[in-house]
Amino acid sequence: MKEKATFYHAGCPVCLDAQNAVESIVDRSRFDLEVIHLGEAPDRLAGAEAEGLKSVPALATGGQMIHLNHGADVSALKN
Amino acid sequence: MKEKATFYHAGCPVCLDAQNAVESIVDRSRFDLEVIHLGEAPDRLAGAEAEGLKSVPALATGGQMIHLNHGADVSALKN
Repeated sequence: MKEKATFYHAGCPVCLDAQNAVESIVDRSRFDLEVIHLGEAPDRLAGAEAEGLKSVPALATGGQMIHLNHGADVSALKN
Repeated sequence: MKEKATFYHAGCPVCLDAQNAVESIVDRSRFDLEVIHLGEAPDRLAGAEAEGLKSVPALATGGQMIHLNHGADVSALKN
């Protein structure tokens, strides 16, 4: 069974650069990579925050939240 | 020929967590992953900065420098 990796972003330029890199490097034979646009799926925000999300873009895997560069704080994604 | 990915760190706890994640997710069939401890290899610092390194840990790949969380600024690695 594959491990899960989740890439969280918000469509920002920094996010898209990071998404390209993540989609390129992640070993898809071992990881199921899910890409979540939190602007389009705001219902995923609470769960992401519970996983440790502070800013986007970020990659959650193996119980860790890895923030990749810095596009926007989570607070900027809330209305 | 494999693409190159370089993980820069300085041995800090944040660095080691990120290193574990990177070593786990990177597709080694397509990427040669080099791990550089800048405290032990200070001669690699100038080149890393030229690639865009601002802080460690970070992953350089495909012409991008992706800073992963935040362990230490590059300035803290200079004596």
